[in-house]
Amino acid sequence: MDVIKGGVTAAKGFLSAGGHCGAKRKNKDLALVYSNSPAKMAATFTTNIVKAAPVLWNKKIYDSNEKVKAIVVNSGNANACTGKIGMIHANQMATETGNALGVNENEVLVASTGVIGVTLPIDKICNGIHDLSTNLSESEQSANDAANAIRTTDTYNKEIAVTIQIDGKKVTIGGMAKGSGMIHPNMATMLSFITTDINISSSLLREALSESIKDSYNMISVDGDTSTNDMVILLANGEADNNKIETKDDNYKIFKDALDYVNTYLAKLIVADGEGVTKFIEVSVKGAKSKEDARLISKSVITSNLVKTAFFGEDANWGRILCAMGYSSAEFNPNKVSLHYVSNKGKISLVENGLPIQFDEEKASKIISERDIIVEIDLEDGPGEAKAWGCDLSYEYVKINGEYRT
Amino acid sequence: MDVIKGGVTAAKGFLSAGGHCGAKRKNKDLALVYSNSPAKMAATFTTNIVKAAPVLWNKKIYDSNEKVKAIVVNSGNANACTGKIGMIHANQMATETGNALGVNENEVLVASTGVIGVTLPIDKICNGIHDLSTNLSESEQSANDAANAIRTTDTYNKEIAVTIQIDGKKVTIGGMAKGSGMIHPNMATMLSFITTDINISSSLLREALSESIKDSYNMISVDGDTSTNDMVILLANGEADNNKIETKDDNYKIFKDALDYVNTYLAKLIVADGEGVTKFIEVSVKGAKSKEDARLISKSVITSNLVKTAFFGEDANWGRILCAMGYSSAEFNPNKVSLHYVSNKGKISLVENGLPIQFDEEKASKIISERDIIVEIDLEDGPGEAKAWGCDLSYEYVKINGEYRT
Repeated sequence: MDVIKGGVTAAKGFLSAGGHCGAKRKNKDLALVYSNSPAKMAATFTTNIVKAAPVLWNKKIYDSNEKVKAIVVNSGNANACTGKIGMIHANQMATETGNALGVNENEVLVASTGVIGVTLPIDKICNGIHDLSTNLSESEQSANDAANAIRTTDTYNKEIAVTIQIDGKKVTIGGMAKGSGMIHPNMATMLSFITTDINISSSLLREALSESIKDSYNMISVDGDTSTNDMVILLANGEADNNKIETKDDNYKIFKDALDYVNTYLAKLIVADGEGVTKFIEVSVKGAKSKEDARLISKSVITSNLVKTAFFGEDANWGRILCAMGYSSAEFNPNKVSLHYVSNKGKISLVENGLPIQFDEEKASKIISERDIIVEIDLEDGPGEAKAWGCDLSYEYVKINGEYRT
Repeated sequence: MDVIKGGVTAAKGFLSAGGHCGAKRKNKDLALVYSNSPAKMAATFTTNIVKAAPVLWNKKIYDSNEKVKAIVVNSGNANACTGKIGMIHANQMATETGNALGVNENEVLVASTGVIGVTLPIDKICNGIHDLSTNLSESEQSANDAANAIRTTDTYNKEIAVTIQIDGKKVTIGGMAKGSGMIHPNMATMLSFITTDINISSSLLREALSESIKDSYNMISVDGDTSTNDMVILLANGEADNNKIETKDDNYKIFKDALDYVNTYLAKLIVADGEGVTKFIEVSVKGAKSKEDARLISKSVITSNLVKTAFFGEDANWGRILCAMGYSSAEFNPNKVSLHYVSNKGKISLVENGLPIQFDEEKASKIISERDIIVEIDLEDGPGEAKAWGCDLSYEYVKINGEYRT
């Protein structure tokens, strides 16, 4: 696998554009993605029972299992808690995109992100769609513009592209994502759009994505809130012209590994750019009874406000980590736990066999003064392993979220 | 029911003392509670699988269903994650208390609260136990000293006492609690000790407590963390001399209502004095499919960091409330939800039938500028009702928890 420059237009036959339509006061706020060939679709949607209108629109298309040609995304307004008019607007965004691009509205996916409960400025968005549709291009700049246009409080673009070889054919996977607040396992205000030119059966494409999100987007948390609008969309248009993947053979595995890489990369970027983040924390659990237990424990630790504030304060307060492990609902033997902190400044052991070790506070302070910190937990209780990614809880997080609407 | 002055010594035959032994650098840090007559015991312990040594000690006594005579509590050190030596120390605290008071160690309950993973200064505590044992008294001041001695970052004592009439006899219930950080449903670093002179069967005493905590301590959250040390202990010594309550008759109901009052009062005080709290928020849900659904929804709302920061910022951001309801795992129809904010400054409707109402932002701001705010949620979907209590998430919370050990 090679990591290359580019994003959502890196794979063959995908075009995009991003621009400003007025959903936000300033900055880009509207993105289009277009596939020359009809693309198979895999997707995961928020588990929140309050679902935004575009989520409902896309679920309908997903359930029909039809191919799609385009995605339209606005930022600045989530089109959530907007009732019947919200559904009409989501439909209208699809219709206008269809009209502008000469495709059926049922081939158009819709996404929105931003403030909840405010009616979309639909006329501005429809005008914007028509303007953007004439600017579609395969260029890196277009991918960049689209990645920029889906941002809300994100401070930078989140893009990646990789290539793999399948049967001697070059296959490309590209993607863009946005995150920032409300990021929590099981989909948060997090949008991720992945495009690939691989030729693969629809059922394997869906299985690959649903497996892949378990160890990527579902293993990150910024603040424990799961939003009304989250989705991950994966489109595959087959233009790489490889022999169609129809079984879980070696080629499937090569694709799945590359997809995991793309999703994990974007997921980690989302956390690293979380609201008010000053620390990026990886919690790596091994020796759990099962993979699911390892996931529960690592997620419980990165979600704990007390753990997060301790990292913000650069305090090696391992007791809070054991506490968060203990209420994760996973089973483990507290008397077998060992715990290390690792960063560029070294590695330090804090707990062995469930008991605190006399450690060098100065060395510990130096290690956790870094921005990137790994918490290694070994349970010596089985084969289960998982990693979760989170961040600290800072004054800035409180500030951003106390003043979001004002 | 009458609310009277006093705390843990208000009921007949209970004595207490509180003093300084050196577990903390300064301030009171050791409390004793003593019952003249052997008392029946009801209790609830933390669900965290990492349990502090005193929790394990008390569970053993609880399971044996023997009567108890005394409780010893230290603050400043949680005796959690302290391994075998921790268990030895918990036992030693019971033995020393037993020796000092002339009772068996199996009649002594033990509690600790404070920093995790540091060995108890057991000699200081044992000396303190002997000193305190000579100061036991029924006075209000003694109850006050005990309530003071169990505090950690609590900024004030949490005490209450009430009287009821059972068969013409005066029955008293008194209590003290401590809270502050790590407060979350299913027991958090929260200790609560209730004493009563009622004569009641052991099984009904336990049932009354386990029912009572569901709508009191288990409905509060400061930060979503469930600690290693939480417990609620209820002792009943029978000295009120009422006819023994052995069925769920009217007298049981009178007692249960008074017990609910005491527990809810203490639970709300714990939240109101949570770390860095500037707002006290009640979330009142009605019209849920079931009581359990109402509990899930109200707890999900008070636990959301995004809701909490919005209240800190005095921002009427109702979208975050709907979002938190949506991921509570309770079922409801989003299109039937109505939402009001209420405070001393009035009441305002924000959502009707799941849709935002055009509301007067100035009036809303005035209402949520108060310290005490009620969020009323009506789901129009069934008979389920519940209330949960929480607080905002402030700069001060981050500060206190970023610097706790330093």
